[in-house]
Amino acid sequence: MPELRLVPKPELDRLRAAEVDPDARLALLADACRLNALVAVKRAGSGHLGSTFSALDVVAHLLFEELDVARRGFDDPDRDVFFSSKGHDVPGLYAALFALGVVPRERLLRLRRLGGLDGHPEVGVPGIEASSGSLGMGISKGRGIALAKRRLGRQGRIVVMTGDGELQEGQNWEALQSAAHERLGRLWVVVDRNEVQSDKRTEEIVALGDLEAKLRAFGWDVETADGHDHAALRGAFARFREGDDTPKALVANTVKGKGVSFMEHPHALAEGGGTYRWHAGAPDDEAFAQALAEIEARLAERCLALGLDPPSLEAVEAEAAVRGLEGEPESGAGSRRPAVSAEYVVEAYGEALLELAAERDDLVVLDADLASDCRTREFELAYPERFFQCGIAEQDMVSTAAGMARHGLLPVVNSFASFLASRANEQIYNQASERSKVVYALHYAGLIPAGPGKSHQSVRDISLLGALPNLPIVQPGSSEETAALLRWAVEDAEESVAVRLAIGPSPRRLDLPAQVSVGRGSLLHEGGDAVLVAYGPVMLHEALLAAERLAESGDLSLRVVAMPWLNRFDEDWLAAEVARFDPVFVLEDHAPVGGLGDGLRAALQRPVTVFGVEGWAACGTPPEALGFHGLDGASLAARIVDRVGAVAR
Amino acid sequence: MPELRLVPKPELDRLRAAEVDPDARLALLADACRLNALVAVKRAGSGHLGSTFSALDVVAHLLFEELDVARRGFDDPDRDVFFSSKGHDVPGLYAALFALGVVPRERLLRLRRLGGLDGHPEVGVPGIEASSGSLGMGISKGRGIALAKRRLGRQGRIVVMTGDGELQEGQNWEALQSAAHERLGRLWVVVDRNEVQSDKRTEEIVALGDLEAKLRAFGWDVETADGHDHAALRGAFARFREGDDTPKALVANTVKGKGVSFMEHPHALAEGGGTYRWHAGAPDDEAFAQALAEIEARLAERCLALGLDPPSLEAVEAEAAVRGLEGEPESGAGSRRPAVSAEYVVEAYGEALLELAAERDDLVVLDADLASDCRTREFELAYPERFFQCGIAEQDMVSTAAGMARHGLLPVVNSFASFLASRANEQIYNQASERSKVVYALHYAGLIPAGPGKSHQSVRDISLLGALPNLPIVQPGSSEETAALLRWAVEDAEESVAVRLAIGPSPRRLDLPAQVSVGRGSLLHEGGDAVLVAYGPVMLHEALLAAERLAESGDLSLRVVAMPWLNRFDEDWLAAEVARFDPVFVLEDHAPVGGLGDGLRAALQRPVTVFGVEGWAACGTPPEALGFHGLDGASLAARIVDRVGAVAR
Repeated sequence: MPELRLVPKPELDRLRAAEVDPDARLALLADACRLNALVAVKRAGSGHLGSTFSALDVVAHLLFEELDVARRGFDDPDRDVFFSSKGHDVPGLYAALFALGVVPRERLLRLRRLGGLDGHPEVGVPGIEASSGSLGMGISKGRGIALAKRRLGRQGRIVVMTGDGELQEGQNWEALQSAAHERLGRLWVVVDRNEVQSDKRTEEIVALGDLEAKLRAFGWDVETADGHDHAALRGAFARFREGDDTPKALVANTVKGKGVSFMEHPHALAEGGGTYRWHAGAPDDEAFAQALAEIEARLAERCLALGLDPPSLEAVEAEAAVRGLEGEPESGAGSRRPAVSAEYVVEAYGEALLELAAERDDLVVLDADLASDCRTREFELAYPERFFQCGIAEQDMVSTAAGMARHGLLPVVNSFASFLASRANEQIYNQASERSKVVYALHYAGLIPAGPGKSHQSVRDISLLGALPNLPIVQPGSSEETAALLRWAVEDAEESVAVRLAIGPSPRRLDLPAQVSVGRGSLLHEGGDAVLVAYGPVMLHEALLAAERLAESGDLSLRVVAMPWLNRFDEDWLAAEVARFDPVFVLEDHAPVGGLGDGLRAALQRPVTVFGVEGWAACGTPPEALGFHGLDGASLAARIVDRVGAVAR
Repeated sequence: MPELRLVPKPELDRLRAAEVDPDARLALLADACRLNALVAVKRAGSGHLGSTFSALDVVAHLLFEELDVARRGFDDPDRDVFFSSKGHDVPGLYAALFALGVVPRERLLRLRRLGGLDGHPEVGVPGIEASSGSLGMGISKGRGIALAKRRLGRQGRIVVMTGDGELQEGQNWEALQSAAHERLGRLWVVVDRNEVQSDKRTEEIVALGDLEAKLRAFGWDVETADGHDHAALRGAFARFREGDDTPKALVANTVKGKGVSFMEHPHALAEGGGTYRWHAGAPDDEAFAQALAEIEARLAERCLALGLDPPSLEAVEAEAAVRGLEGEPESGAGSRRPAVSAEYVVEAYGEALLELAAERDDLVVLDADLASDCRTREFELAYPERFFQCGIAEQDMVSTAAGMARHGLLPVVNSFASFLASRANEQIYNQASERSKVVYALHYAGLIPAGPGKSHQSVRDISLLGALPNLPIVQPGSSEETAALLRWAVEDAEESVAVRLAIGPSPRRLDLPAQVSVGRGSLLHEGGDAVLVAYGPVMLHEALLAAERLAESGDLSLRVVAMPWLNRFDEDWLAAEVARFDPVFVLEDHAPVGGLGDGLRAALQRPVTVFGVEGWAACGTPPEALGFHGLDGASLAARIVDRVGAVAR
C-alpha cells in the first residue's frame, strides 16, 4: 500500500470559507472530495471511482451551495433532502459529508469495513438520506418524501441523483409518471449522464436515445447542463427554483472518471477497446499514485489561481491488515487467515457456458449489465448473436427469456442473486408457471463479499424461489461441481433451474465430484459426533475450519457434508449420510429462514440446528462479516460444542 | 340463472365464410364473440367484461383477418403470435378461439372451472400463447419471442395487446426501450386505450398524458386508430406491414364495455358518479338478459344489412350447481356445502382503517388501483388528502411509502398479495432495511377465490417475506381479529408488519379474540389425539370441518388451533397449546414450503406434517380448488386419519 494522504477537515474548512469566485471554489472543493474519495476507496480495496468522479461536481454544488441541509442539519424536517439513487457514487458523497463534519474521519477511513461506512448508501450512516445500491428506487423515494413534506406542511426540496444507465430500470418510469401526475414541483432529479454503465456505453447496452424528450414526454421540466460546469449548474438550479409545480429533471452531462486523466471515459474507453475498467474496484498502487498526484497538482493549481495556499495533505496511518481486493479474505482481528485459493467458481461457470454453447445452438445468454462480473463476457465475444444484453432491467430480462424459452431457445439468465431473485421474482414465477425451461444463474449469492453492503449481499434468494413447485436450486462448491451442475441444468433438467454462485475466490479448493447425483451431497470431513451440512465455497471452508479445529482440540468429531442441492433431497442418501448422525447442524450462506435448513427439517422430520445470517447482513471484510454473524470456523466450532454440550446435559 | 344461449360453432363458421364486406363481417364476428364471452362470464359467475368488450374488435380483426395463425395453426413455429398482456380480456379471446375451433365448446362453458378455462390466460389452454394476469410482462415476452424468431430464422409477427392503465407498470418501459434498441420491427403492440382502469379513468389514477408522444420518445413507430373501426384498423396494420425494423405501436382508442349500452364507459362512468362498475364480476340476471338482448338484436341487424340470416343461437344446458359470485363457495362434486357467512374480513379491515385514521393524522393509505377490492374506497372518500393512488405500479408504491415513512408518515400499503409481495419484493426489503415502519396489507392472500387463476392466487407470499429479519406476518381469521391485528400493526408494532387478508366471504364466523397476544393463537376445537394448526378464515373452516367430521365419526379427537402469527411464536404458548400434542399438523393457505409449517418446525424442533397447496394453484370454484389440492375438510380428515394410523402402526 502506498502512502495515503487526505485533505484534512481544517483545510477543507479553509477552502469552503475562502472568499473567492464561488464557482471556482466549488470546483476546488469537488476536487478535494475527489482526492479524499480516492484515498478512501484505495484503503477499502474497492469502490466505484468512475461514477463517484462523474457525480462529484453536482454533489459538491448541491451540498456546499444550493441546498440548505448543511445549514439546517440532517434532523430538521424542513431541510432540503439529497440522496443518490444509483449509490455507486457514495464515496464522493462521504467525502462531501466529511467536509461538512457529518461523517467523522475515522469512519471515512473505514469505508466498506465493519462499523465504518457501507459500500452503498445506508441510512445508518450520518447524512445518508436513503438506502440504495439496488438501482431505480430513488425517484420513487423522492416522490414519497415530497408527498410527506406536502402533507405535513414541511419546507425543503428533494433532489435525487440517478445514473443514466440506471434509467433502464422500469421503476424510474413509474415514478416519473406518478410524480408528474402529483405535480411534485419540489422534486428534482439530476441524471448523472456520464454515458457509461458498468463497463460499456449506455447507448451500446440499451440506448436511452433522446433522454430529454423522454423526460418531457413524461411531464417533467427538463434542463441540460455540463455537469462539471458550476456556472451552468447554478443557472439550471436557479431556473428550477423559479419553476412551477412541475417536477424538474436536470440532465447533467458528465465524464465518467472525471478529474483523473486516464479514468475519464473517452480516454479509458479508447484504451480499453470499448470497455471501461474504472467502474468498480480500487486502482493498483501505481495507478493510485498517479491519480493522487494528478488531483493534488490540480488542487495546487486551482488554489494558486485563486490566490489561496494549496491544502496541506495529512498522511493517513497505515493499516497493515487492510489488503487487496474485495472478496479476498483479509486478516481479521489479529488472526491471520490462510491464503485464498486461485479458484473462482464463477470462472468455471463462464468456461462451462462456452463449452455448452459449442455443443448446442439453442443456448442463449441474457445479461443485465453485469457481463464482466457474471463471467459471460467470453460468451459475448464468442457468440455475439446468442448474447442478449438487456441492460439494468431484470424484469424485462426474465420475461424476455420466458418468451424465448417458449419459442425454441434455452436461455441462461444472469444477474446478481439479490436483484434477480427479488426484483424479477414475479416474472420468474410467471415463467416457471409456463413450464418452459430457463436456467437462472444467481451470481454473488451469499454473505461474501461483504463490502458492498446489504443491497448486494444475497441472503434471501433461496427463500424467494423455494416455494416454486418446479425449480431446483443448486449451489456448487468447486469448479468441477459448477461445470457438472450447469451441464445438468442445461442438458438434463426437465424444467427451470436456479444455480447459485459465489462471486469471490474460493477460500480453498474442495474435492467434490464432477458427476451429478440429484439430491445427494458429498462427504468432506469424516466425523461421528455430529454432522454439519453446508454449501458453497465460502461456508464449506468455514465448516471445514470448524471441523479441523474441533478435531485438533479433540472436543468433537464433526462430520462435514457438502450439499449442493438446496431444495431437492435423495431420501436414501439423507438416511445414510445425514440422518444417522445426531445432532444435525446446517450452515447457511443465507438467512436462517427459507434456506437449506428448513428443507432438511421437512425432509428429515427431526431437529436441525441452523447457523445462518441472522439480522441484516453486515458490511465489512469477509472475516469481519463472518465473525459478526458467528459464522467463521472458530465461532462455529464454539457454537457447535456449546450446542452438543447442551444436548448432552 | 336465466337461459344462456350461445352462437354455436357452425353459425360462426357461416358468418366467417360469408362473402360480404370484410369490415362489416369483422364487426359482426366481434359481436358474436361478445355474446359468447358474455355467456361464458355469466356462467362462470365472474370475468372482466369491460375490458373484454373494449378489446374484442381488435382481437377479432387480428385473429380472423390480419394474422396467419388461424391458417398455420398454433404449433407452426413460423406463425404470427398474438397474446394479451393485460389478460383481463381473455373471455373475448376464448370466444374468438372457440370460433376458430381451437377452444372446444365444453371448455368455453367451463370458464373459471377446474379443467375448463383459466380466469386469466394460461399456456395450458389451446391457443393461449403466454400466461398473463399480472400486468406489464407482455411486451417483454413479445420481445423474447421476436428475438427467438430472429435467431432461429422463423417467420411471423408478434402482436401484444396491452391495457392503457397497464402502462403504469414500469416493466413496459423497460421492454419498450430494449425492443427499440434491438430494432424488433416485427414486434407490434396494440394498446387497448379504453381510458378506464379497474374502476376509474386512467387520467385520474395516474395520467398517461400524451401516450403517443411517450411511445415515440421511446423509439417506436406509432399509429392511432379507432379500435372499433375495422377500416381504420386495417389501414394501421397495413402501414405497419410496410414499416421498417422499428417496433410498432398502435394506440387503439376504444370504449370500455363496448357493445352493451349501459356498460360503455362514458355512460357507465356518468351513472356511477365517476366509477365504473363493469370491470370485474358477472352481471346480475337482469343486466345479463338486457346485455344479451342488445347484442343479439345488433347481430340480427348487422346480418340483415349484409343480406345474411341472423345466427340461430343455441340454448346452453343449465348447470344447477353453478352459482353466484366469485369466491362464494359453490357446491362441488355432488356435495352441497354450508352457506357462507356474511363476513368479509377485508370489510373489517376497511372499517378499522377508518377508525385508526380518525385517531392519527400521520396514517396514510397507498393503493395500486385496487381501492374497491382492497376496501380502501371509504378511506379515499373520507380522507382524500391522505389517500395516495399509485396506479398499477407496485414498485413505485412501495418505495414511495419508504420515503414517506422516513419523513413522518405511517403508510399502509395495499395490493393483492401475489403482486405486492412478489413484484415489489426488493423494494420491501430495501424499506425494511431502513428500519422505518410501513404496514403492508396483502389482500387476496391464499388459494381462494380460485377462479382468477394462478396469477392472482397468492400461495408464496409468506415465503417471499419470511426471511426479512424484522417483518412479522399475520393473518386474521375473523373481523374482530382483523381489527385488533391492524390496530396492533399501526399502534404497537415497532417495525413494519405484513397483514395477510382473505378477500372472499368467510365460510363461517369464528370466535377469535379481539386482543392481540404476540405469537399466540387460539383454540377453536378441543381435541387430544392430534393438533391441527391453521390460519385465515378459509382454511380454519376446512380445519373445523375436518375436526367435526372426525368427532362425528369417532375416528379421532382433533384439536384445532387458529394461529394468526405466521412467523412469530410465543414459546410458552407453543409448549402449552401445541407441543404437548402429537402429531402436529399444519394446514397452510400457502405452498408447503416457506409457510407457517417451516416456522413451526424450527420453533418446535420436532416433526410437523404440512398440508399445503402443492404444485400450481388450481383454477376453479372454491370446492374444486380445495378438493383438487386435498385441502377440503373431508380430504383433510382422511389424510389426518391416514397419517395418524401410519404413526400408530
